[in-house]
Amino acid sequence: MVLRSKVKALFSADKALAKTLKNIFGFYPGNIFLYQLAFRHKSAANETINGYKISNERLEFLGDAILSATVADFLFKKFPYKNEGFLTEMRARIVSRNSLNKLSQKLGLDDLVLTAKDTKSQFRSASGDAFEAFIGALYLDKGYNFTHKVLIDRIVATHIDLDALEKSESNPKSRLIEWAQKEKIPIEFRVISELGEGYKKQYLVEIHLDGVPHAKGQDFSIKGAEQMAAEKTLQVIRTDQS
Amino acid sequence: MVLRSKVKALFSADKALAKTLKNIFGFYPGNIFLYQLAFRHKSAANETINGYKISNERLEFLGDAILSATVADFLFKKFPYKNEGFLTEMRARIVSRNSLNKLSQKLGLDDLVLTAKDTKSQFRSASGDAFEAFIGALYLDKGYNFTHKVLIDRIVATHIDLDALEKSESNPKSRLIEWAQKEKIPIEFRVISELGEGYKKQYLVEIHLDGVPHAKGQDFSIKGAEQMAAEKTLQVIRTDQS
Repeated sequence: MVLRSKVKALFSADKALAKTLKNIFGFYPGNIFLYQLAFRHKSAANETINGYKISNERLEFLGDAILSATVADFLFKKFPYKNEGFLTEMRARIVSRNSLNKLSQKLGLDDLVLTAKDTKSQFRSASGDAFEAFIGALYLDKGYNFTHKVLIDRIVATHIDLDALEKSESNPKSRLIEWAQKEKIPIEFRVISELGEGYKKQYLVEIHLDGVPHAKGQDFSIKGAEQMAAEKTLQVIRTDQS
Repeated sequence: MVLRSKVKALFSADKALAKTLKNIFGFYPGNIFLYQLAFRHKSAANETINGYKISNERLEFLGDAILSATVADFLFKKFPYKNEGFLTEMRARIVSRNSLNKLSQKLGLDDLVLTAKDTKSQFRSASGDAFEAFIGALYLDKGYNFTHKVLIDRIVATHIDLDALEKSESNPKSRLIEWAQKEKIPIEFRVISELGEGYKKQYLVEIHLDGVPHAKGQDFSIKGAEQMAAEKTLQVIRTDQS
């Protein structure tokens, strides 16, 4: 009898999750186990297989890649006359951890995330991670084309304000880091010297791309010097590429 | 008559490309224009639409994402008991610019790449870029599932030695940069001071993650100090995550 009610409880938990997903995304899951796993944060991992703690981290790895591909396809077709720099930057804004956390909360996925008791607030990015893991689960369950359709129809088209994203200014340092990541070039910001003392103190920052020194920037704060050096480096890159 | 022979020449160029692709990958292209574009390096861009120079860069953006997704799926299924750190690192090794350049040469795609005259050797990564652009073209032409199958059956299964890749040691600095890119955390290597003079001179490097200082490393070379600091940072990350 105990087992029976346990099984029943499990089934009704499955049903509740299935219904929630149907409400949010408009489809019934096939393999519910995948989605349960997607919402299990590593702090709530309670089983181990071959030394691997079972949580949503592997699914997150997969979902992150599928999301990137889907958004790349969407932007490629949406902006036929924009160059790859624009596409890269727009995608980075759409899939940023911050943006995914917000989206996940807006959709109500937040409430589905299982973390260690009373620790949810500690894991700032748990809901964005779970959102990516959910995409991984959906991909395994229903395939790429279905996942693509759900993401574009139910999320990008409805919840992402492309005009606002396009207008939002990102700073030179993040633009440069995005560019370097896209080009797979290691980037470093080095404080190479400090000039003056006390309130007159300035920092000299030099940017290295793949170990090679590029532009320098000087300012009263390290951050300011970095932004200046990044802006100069971006100008050189733009000239090289045109 | 002139037009007619021009058209004929164009068709025969199309046919030659179609045949080459069939030989290398085992399929006949649908929209040959996409593949022609995929092999046009930006140095050989000769037309402009709305201020955008027509080259393979947009296709490369798309193909890079599709390749990442496909390799993520492959590794996810191939290594069911490996954690996401392992998967991320293996993927980074498979899709590294260096690895794609080699692969592109091995497959013979190199000869298809159109660059500005006599400059091919200048563009070290032109063939790897074209390989990614080719994947973008294939995806648009035949869809995700077909592309996935071609990539896995014809390339990953045949040309990638997973055992060798697994054993190859990557250095702590690149591992840390890969991790930071995956987690979308800005990383900086700062030389914060130089100690001693002449041949005894040592460098103190501090790693900053999202602006917050982490481990330091000290060595006679900046590179050595960076590796040491990266190794220490990786240890902290591993402890945090276990």
